[in-house]
Amino acid sequence: MKPNFSLRLRVFNLNCWGIPYLSKHRADRMKRLGDFLNVESFDLALLEEVWSEQDFQYLRQKLLPTYPAAHYFRSWNLSFSGIIGSGLCVFSKHPIQEFTQHVYTLNGYPYMVHHGDWFSGKAVGLLVFHLSGLVLNAYVTHLHAEYNRQKDIYLAHRVAQAWELAHFIHHTSKKADMVLLCGDLNLHPKDLGFRLLKEWTGLHDAYLETQDFKGSEEGCTMVPENCYVNQQELELFPCGIRIDYVLYKAVSGFCISCKTLKTTTGHDPHSGTPLSDHEALMATLCVRHSPPQHNPSPTHGPVERSPLISVLREACTELDLGVAQARWWATFASYVIGLGLLFLAVLSALVAEGGIREIAILLWTLSVGLVLGVGAVYLFHLQEAKGLCRARAELQHVLGRAREAQNLGPEFKPALFLEHQEGYRTEDQ
Amino acid sequence: MKPNFSLRLRVFNLNCWGIPYLSKHRADRMKRLGDFLNVESFDLALLEEVWSEQDFQYLRQKLLPTYPAAHYFRSWNLSFSGIIGSGLCVFSKHPIQEFTQHVYTLNGYPYMVHHGDWFSGKAVGLLVFHLSGLVLNAYVTHLHAEYNRQKDIYLAHRVAQAWELAHFIHHTSKKADMVLLCGDLNLHPKDLGFRLLKEWTGLHDAYLETQDFKGSEEGCTMVPENCYVNQQELELFPCGIRIDYVLYKAVSGFCISCKTLKTTTGHDPHSGTPLSDHEALMATLCVRHSPPQHNPSPTHGPVERSPLISVLREACTELDLGVAQARWWATFASYVIGLGLLFLAVLSALVAEGGIREIAILLWTLSVGLVLGVGAVYLFHLQEAKGLCRARAELQHVLGRAREAQNLGPEFKPALFLEHQEGYRTEDQ
Repeated sequence: MKPNFSLRLRVFNLNCWGIPYLSKHRADRMKRLGDFLNVESFDLALLEEVWSEQDFQYLRQKLLPTYPAAHYFRSWNLSFSGIIGSGLCVFSKHPIQEFTQHVYTLNGYPYMVHHGDWFSGKAVGLLVFHLSGLVLNAYVTHLHAEYNRQKDIYLAHRVAQAWELAHFIHHTSKKADMVLLCGDLNLHPKDLGFRLLKEWTGLHDAYLETQDFKGSEEGCTMVPENCYVNQQELELFPCGIRIDYVLYKAVSGFCISCKTLKTTTGHDPHSGTPLSDHEALMATLCVRHSPPQHNPSPTHGPVERSPLISVLREACTELDLGVAQARWWATFASYVIGLGLLFLAVLSALVAEGGIREIAILLWTLSVGLVLGVGAVYLFHLQEAKGLCRARAELQHVLGRAREAQNLGPEFKPALFLEHQEGYRTEDQ
Repeated sequence: MKPNFSLRLRVFNLNCWGIPYLSKHRADRMKRLGDFLNVESFDLALLEEVWSEQDFQYLRQKLLPTYPAAHYFRSWNLSFSGIIGSGLCVFSKHPIQEFTQHVYTLNGYPYMVHHGDWFSGKAVGLLVFHLSGLVLNAYVTHLHAEYNRQKDIYLAHRVAQAWELAHFIHHTSKKADMVLLCGDLNLHPKDLGFRLLKEWTGLHDAYLETQDFKGSEEGCTMVPENCYVNQQELELFPCGIRIDYVLYKAVSGFCISCKTLKTTTGHDPHSGTPLSDHEALMATLCVRHSPPQHNPSPTHGPVERSPLISVLREACTELDLGVAQARWWATFASYVIGLGLLFLAVLSALVAEGGIREIAILLWTLSVGLVLGVGAVYLFHLQEAKGLCRARAELQHVLGRAREAQNLGPEFKPALFLEHQEGYRTEDQ
């Protein structure tokens, strides 16, 4: 690697709001998005909420000359969660060397049909690129939406998703030279989930790092100027909210800086109607050679222990509350099942005695349905509690090791947290 | 790292057959297993089919002085698949630095209740250890069982699981110095899934590599001498079958050899009744320093392209068949739904005309149940087809790149397949 090595990477991110039948002017917006991406010719375009595979295929055809590589993340599992797909896709100028994905295991409730998150398989997609001899791990994701900030019933799920995302990046990027994460995190910059993600992965926020920002006030990605945005949702935030991000980091030996960051401002980049209800992010990243750093900057990443410990503790508390709530619902459901079974027994006795048979049979049918339905709710919340417990166990393990590192002093940090730093080898026995 | 560096690792693996209420002499076997592990004092004991968390807690207490670190992989997701857990756990002399897991997305059918695999969350667990300055990634797993070798309806799922396992190891072990995989793969040594796993990960089979093997004939891990084994299952294999494995690899800069491998032979290691219906594996691995190899041995791993291409092709064909079958079942279910709806309409007409109401209501109830049940089957097979398609897409991508590598010649191999080899950096532009 030459010492004057430098690599420029132009990245585009957009939540496309591509819900078939529901999103307004979808076909027109997809067409304009395709035109715009062709004109701008980014290195990488990472898209969320492309729910229809037809839309992806349309874009693929349209973008083929400029972006020869593309991938659509079909999210799936053998529950009915995730039946709609992940909505994530990517178009790239550079060949995709490898790809894989992780579907989040906690993603809302099936009976909250009107929110619909459970039916979509919210996931994180990973794409590996080799650029000028460097390995770039690019991640694209979309986390569970926040529907009510005052009373966020999905908070524990969203924290668990942020943890799963951070953990997935942590385990799959150990050998990467650069890490890029783009997506709609549905998290404000000061939210617990976002702080957890940043602290555990050491990712930098392009909006905070760049010297050259152009776009909406405070980098917001949902703004009241956008005609597709439900203005009621922004009542508490008159400037808008920042929930879509470009995050990045380089491992020792390289450094990345964000030269420019632009957002759209509620309009088409060529000032027509907007491309989506979210604003697009356009970043120019510059990767340079830097001398190996054995004591990385204390302001970022897992090495700075106090903020990490504090955010891990906070996340554990949130998951504790989530576990308690899931168990409460499971207990409540078990009582309803008990009552339903009692009612069934009474009805069976009534039928046997020759009472009003027709009504009894109808009620019996309804009760069986109720017992089965609530049985499913019971099992669901039991699994939810288990899921939250697992995330908490992982968090507690990391917290324990972070505390040990703190007690042992700075010389033990690398062994605990920096095994992915280049050049680390402790002495053999 | 000193040039004469060497590390000895004693590893134990056993499928414990710990099904509450169903497995014979469970409590006694767990007690004897604990005693044995305490006496032998392995570095790592990796166990499968510890379905009851109580059993894990019992072993944890018993083994605490010898194995201070332990972890139980609670497998879960928010479908009802995986409600029983993964059954995987580990006991270790060395501190566990990190752990995570991946639950396989395809794992049999919920209506095959008697086989029960769907209800257990078959998974792969990853544990990261730091031993004498080296990073060891230890994986433990248990794949879907093979119930009928002549007509294996789960073959596509098992191939997809083997691929997911290989892919998970590939993506999470890039920075590890040593990789160890133990578990009940439910795959014979020549089975497609096993060849796929070995070719894509480059793992070595301890049984084939060791110079010093003691134990059952041909290294079998289910043998007719074991009183818990259903002899009918071994009708075609009079010596037994080898489906449990210790697999390992080191990255460039190190080499691992298997000094000794032992199996139990249908009895307790101290010649009482056996510890399980499977035989235990006990391996002594030796890690040594070796000069960096830029052209690794052509007999193993993803670098040898022809066997890789051939096994990838074979796996694609198997997944194609699986997709076709899943789609056939989905289509069949959709016809049944149509018929059920027609029947419902006729019954509603009968009730409206004042026919035999009681029977009509009962039949109506049954039909509604049928339509809903078959609707679930329809959605399930639709998702199954999607899942198999995704695994196939990943395989096809790897196949495409393997072919490209073959066409471009050997100098392009590293860029495509060996980015995890130490020392690899192509020239910058």
